[in-house]
Amino acid sequence: MKRMHVVAILVIAMFVVCTGSFQSSGFSQKPTQGEPSLKLPSDAMEVIQRRSLNPDDVIGALSTYMPSGKYDDYVMFASGGHSGQMFVIGLPSMRLLKVIAAFTPEPWQGYGIGVKESPLGTKTQWSQRPGDKDITWADTHHPALSETNGDYDGQFLFIGDKANGRVAVIDLRDFETKQIIANPVFNNNHGAAFVTPNTDYVIEGSQYAVPLGGKYAPISDYQKEYRGLVTLWKFNRTKGRIEPENSFAIELPPYWQDLSDAGKEVSDGWLFINSFNTEMATGGIEEGNPPFEAGVSQKDMDYLHVINWRRAEEVAQKPENVKVINGLRVIPLDVSVKEGILYFIPEPKSPHGVDVTPSGKHIVVAGKLDPHVTIYGFDKIQKAIQEKNFEGVDPYGVPIIKFESVLTAQVELGLGPLHTQFDNQGYAYTSLFLESAVARWTVGDDKYKAPEKPWTLVGKVPVHYNIGHIAAAEGDTVSPDGKYLVALNKWSVDRFLNMGPLLPQNLQLVNIENPGDSMKVFYDMPIGNGEPHYAQIIKADKLKTWDVYPEVGWDSLNQTKSEHMTTQGRIEREGNTVKVYMTAIRSHFEPEHVKVKKGNKVIFYITNLERTLDATHGFAIPGYNIAASIEPGETVTIELTVDKEGTYAFYCLEFCSALHLEMVGYLLVEP
Amino acid sequence: MKRMHVVAILVIAMFVVCTGSFQSSGFSQKPTQGEPSLKLPSDAMEVIQRRSLNPDDVIGALSTYMPSGKYDDYVMFASGGHSGQMFVIGLPSMRLLKVIAAFTPEPWQGYGIGVKESPLGTKTQWSQRPGDKDITWADTHHPALSETNGDYDGQFLFIGDKANGRVAVIDLRDFETKQIIANPVFNNNHGAAFVTPNTDYVIEGSQYAVPLGGKYAPISDYQKEYRGLVTLWKFNRTKGRIEPENSFAIELPPYWQDLSDAGKEVSDGWLFINSFNTEMATGGIEEGNPPFEAGVSQKDMDYLHVINWRRAEEVAQKPENVKVINGLRVIPLDVSVKEGILYFIPEPKSPHGVDVTPSGKHIVVAGKLDPHVTIYGFDKIQKAIQEKNFEGVDPYGVPIIKFESVLTAQVELGLGPLHTQFDNQGYAYTSLFLESAVARWTVGDDKYKAPEKPWTLVGKVPVHYNIGHIAAAEGDTVSPDGKYLVALNKWSVDRFLNMGPLLPQNLQLVNIENPGDSMKVFYDMPIGNGEPHYAQIIKADKLKTWDVYPEVGWDSLNQTKSEHMTTQGRIEREGNTVKVYMTAIRSHFEPEHVKVKKGNKVIFYITNLERTLDATHGFAIPGYNIAASIEPGETVTIELTVDKEGTYAFYCLEFCSALHLEMVGYLLVEP
Repeated sequence: MKRMHVVAILVIAMFVVCTGSFQSSGFSQKPTQGEPSLKLPSDAMEVIQRRSLNPDDVIGALSTYMPSGKYDDYVMFASGGHSGQMFVIGLPSMRLLKVIAAFTPEPWQGYGIGVKESPLGTKTQWSQRPGDKDITWADTHHPALSETNGDYDGQFLFIGDKANGRVAVIDLRDFETKQIIANPVFNNNHGAAFVTPNTDYVIEGSQYAVPLGGKYAPISDYQKEYRGLVTLWKFNRTKGRIEPENSFAIELPPYWQDLSDAGKEVSDGWLFINSFNTEMATGGIEEGNPPFEAGVSQKDMDYLHVINWRRAEEVAQKPENVKVINGLRVIPLDVSVKEGILYFIPEPKSPHGVDVTPSGKHIVVAGKLDPHVTIYGFDKIQKAIQEKNFEGVDPYGVPIIKFESVLTAQVELGLGPLHTQFDNQGYAYTSLFLESAVARWTVGDDKYKAPEKPWTLVGKVPVHYNIGHIAAAEGDTVSPDGKYLVALNKWSVDRFLNMGPLLPQNLQLVNIENPGDSMKVFYDMPIGNGEPHYAQIIKADKLKTWDVYPEVGWDSLNQTKSEHMTTQGRIEREGNTVKVYMTAIRSHFEPEHVKVKKGNKVIFYITNLERTLDATHGFAIPGYNIAASIEPGETVTIELTVDKEGTYAFYCLEFCSALHLEMVGYLLVEP
Repeated sequence: MKRMHVVAILVIAMFVVCTGSFQSSGFSQKPTQGEPSLKLPSDAMEVIQRRSLNPDDVIGALSTYMPSGKYDDYVMFASGGHSGQMFVIGLPSMRLLKVIAAFTPEPWQGYGIGVKESPLGTKTQWSQRPGDKDITWADTHHPALSETNGDYDGQFLFIGDKANGRVAVIDLRDFETKQIIANPVFNNNHGAAFVTPNTDYVIEGSQYAVPLGGKYAPISDYQKEYRGLVTLWKFNRTKGRIEPENSFAIELPPYWQDLSDAGKEVSDGWLFINSFNTEMATGGIEEGNPPFEAGVSQKDMDYLHVINWRRAEEVAQKPENVKVINGLRVIPLDVSVKEGILYFIPEPKSPHGVDVTPSGKHIVVAGKLDPHVTIYGFDKIQKAIQEKNFEGVDPYGVPIIKFESVLTAQVELGLGPLHTQFDNQGYAYTSLFLESAVARWTVGDDKYKAPEKPWTLVGKVPVHYNIGHIAAAEGDTVSPDGKYLVALNKWSVDRFLNMGPLLPQNLQLVNIENPGDSMKVFYDMPIGNGEPHYAQIIKADKLKTWDVYPEVGWDSLNQTKSEHMTTQGRIEREGNTVKVYMTAIRSHFEPEHVKVKKGNKVIFYITNLERTLDATHGFAIPGYNIAASIEPGETVTIELTVDKEGTYAFYCLEFCSALHLEMVGYLLVEP
């Protein structure tokens, strides 16, 4: 309990209004007895009174407001839940700067509808499982920024699709999805995406156990036929692509694996995944069985999965060690046991988050039905493995490390702990779902030393409501920044105007600058177009994003010059195919008349000739479900078969100049 | 030029921090010589200094910040441009409260993917033109709130799709699209949607001339075969549906019609549409012709279309007066001329906006290549029509009213005037695209009298950048509210962090409370998921939105009880069809095992039994492109044919409780 003394400062608010604006653009400062003397507009007082703002509101307003043209300090990449998208949010203003079309095709920032240079809606060898329908949505869960030495490097972003077992690769030079990989062995995931400290691998952990490779098996054969899986997708940073042929997976027991985290620093080379259905319950409420929610929550302990991925990488090199399922190498359970790849540690209870401390020395597990977080020491885990200090094996032969032998601490935080992040003051932050709060507690690492006693709860801040994940600034890297934390609250209930039965989520910005029990909610951000699940927050100056594409005639999917670019509009006809090489510049297309015959295959190659920031053009054809967004320098390809006669005005979709409405042409389809 | 005297106020900032929060939750007020004495936290000063906030920034911050749980005063409905969606934004906080899936299917607020109770992606008789592809996007342009006596009533929202000539109907009880109508005569629009003062009709004006009814005609036959059109869609408020069979359209010359506005008060019964290609230019830059942007901008005057829609409504009743094209009644040009339905007035130059003043007495046209707005008197127009004071007819026989005879005023504003709104102080506001500014000028109506001389420019505020439309609070109704105006800027250029070559738009909130040259930009809102074109701003308390659906088992498409609702999970099998009546409640589905055979048609009827605000559940099946959002009380229908064997964990998409991850079941498809 802290008490600060009364502080009084004298503020002379003086202002001169001239021609509707202040003569001085800033506040002048004149030190008097150590206290600042400031000019403050008297109408500020009037606004505070009229709007009944309390002191916390005033601080929140002044701390988060971003004057026109000034830039946010941090950028948060939040998954968009089952919108299938990613949200880019500026901090501290909590403004939605951009939506990235991760998986769901979308005609504006989704690179268009019907555009070839986009992995959204385009099938490639690994983008779809055999037999799957065309998937036009996703349940995006865990974004992962690419890392170098355990720190965000601002180059790439990965995101998992829980619903369909997929991972997408986003290039942060242009904030567009470049690759979608569907796991050929497993059709759902949860612990995805996470990266190893140098982004050698993108980790995709499964969630609900199914037979591997898309097979059918009756639920009565659950223990025999159903399995979990973790896939290590090899990432080629130069190509900006996952290489499935250099990737591998590890078979796991049919416990429902949950979140993952890669070891870092001392624990680099290891991977931690928790699980929550070691009961192997199979549900069936309609048959009088306990429903899943009860069946999977019976035991007091589940298993933290401890995986030596560097060892697995070596083991997977030998063909005799793997089964190849639908083209992907899978290390079977018995090989993992034999080769020392997989160990279990008991963890309480129905865990959600597993998070490695910035030093890499400790692993934090939050069991959502346990009021504690449980902290394991990585050195103790190594010792237990070396000394084979096991309490036995699970039904699949996996060694179980003795809980007490690796336990460093348990900190009682409150109800429903889910997920933990870290700062640069030696604090950890854990979301408490049932309590709708964020708990701050001290980490006992030597990397950052908190002013208080280690492994101790020091404060809580209520949030509104039902918090899921939390994200602190660079809070899951080797060097967290502190300052800001965002509570990703699942329910908003009464926080915002009623906008119908589907309510927004509430992302709350929390000030974590001051030590001790001093956290404050700074800002409530409704998020009305998707359910953010997890987020990462990067220092804005780490992003090295392109203003415009590097050259005129850019193929943005392959980040190279397009062979179809043109600077002069023309039409080429070969048999039934009509190739339209088109240019777009403020404010006309060339050619403006595209005359074709019914039945023709028409291919538009459209190049935006602009080199000016923000000079984007669009291209649409009525009735043909064609819409392209063509950023400065970009070349896009659109193919259609004109199977109906008619007259169609194609036009520019972006308000590009005063004569934007005049940027139009006619597609004339003769009978 | 105004000069205010120096004002000094004394502010004692005192605060006591106790346990991390202020003892007093509000500022106490003690009047001293007419000036308030306020407790202001000294750390507010520290924040102002540290963040270099100037006095305008402080006012902007304090005026727009919305404390947690306090509600915005106004709601802005902005079109989402070619995202195909609608944005719901709170004022003054400029927070995105919700995205409404107007036309583009989307798995979260788009009512799911594969859900039957949604017009998105479902074809009905009028939702698609014969021969069109399945359209999964739109270019939303002009939202129109339903009106009663010319004032917003908060019941319905209409929005046009420029790209594909469609109009959507959104019910504001649940903020969901209920109907999509594709114009069977015309495949694009622009002046859509606008409503008549009691929402008898929803107006859809065409843009780029084409032959009516989807026909082909060579561009050389432009003047003979190409036409414009305005459609008056009859709206049935009780049913909440447009009735195509009671609707009609009016054939127009092949000038490119632009924005529309309905008359109100004295001008009720009339409709105004402007145009910008009375040159009837046909482009063809590739053939050495002037490109469209030059060809359509040659003349100094285009034609304001003046339409007597009440007369047209009567005329359309008689079969001999109309041509029926693809099921829609169309009044031909010669009938309109003969029956006194259509008149033209010259208007300068390449006009964009036409806006009727709150009194209905004046019509304001903004010609984007003319520095003036031109104001016409409705009484003068009536007089000219009665006296047949025409300067002649256009090539299609339409009488042209003499410009000078109906001109009330021209006000020189600046470069690129586009669109005008009104307030309650007697001011009009016009966006200036080329100047990137908002001009304030005085209206010479008797409804609201501005303190300054009528028809005079009184001030400007720069905006950033390239403003298109503007929206003032209730600013296009018979009783504008004033206070707030939003500049819908098309380019943001340097206003926000660089997020790749596709930049957000910038919606700027402008304070218009004070008279004269005193407008201030309050807030910059990046809008990173679509290009808002036009918006309307309604007082928040006019919306009477449902918290949860009225009864358990609600069919939200038809706003009635669903015949498929159930409170007890069960499975019914008939031949090859498997009907799954499923319940969803925190946190389990019933049944949890759905066993089917490959080739079965499976129909899920899922009822969310919750009555709690915010207790939404979702439903997804991996690999089948199925995602439902099921709000409290809702029943949804999902049909699929299980044409591949396998094991699929279906699960809840919304983080509904601490045991949400356990809300799962298995779809078991036997070979």
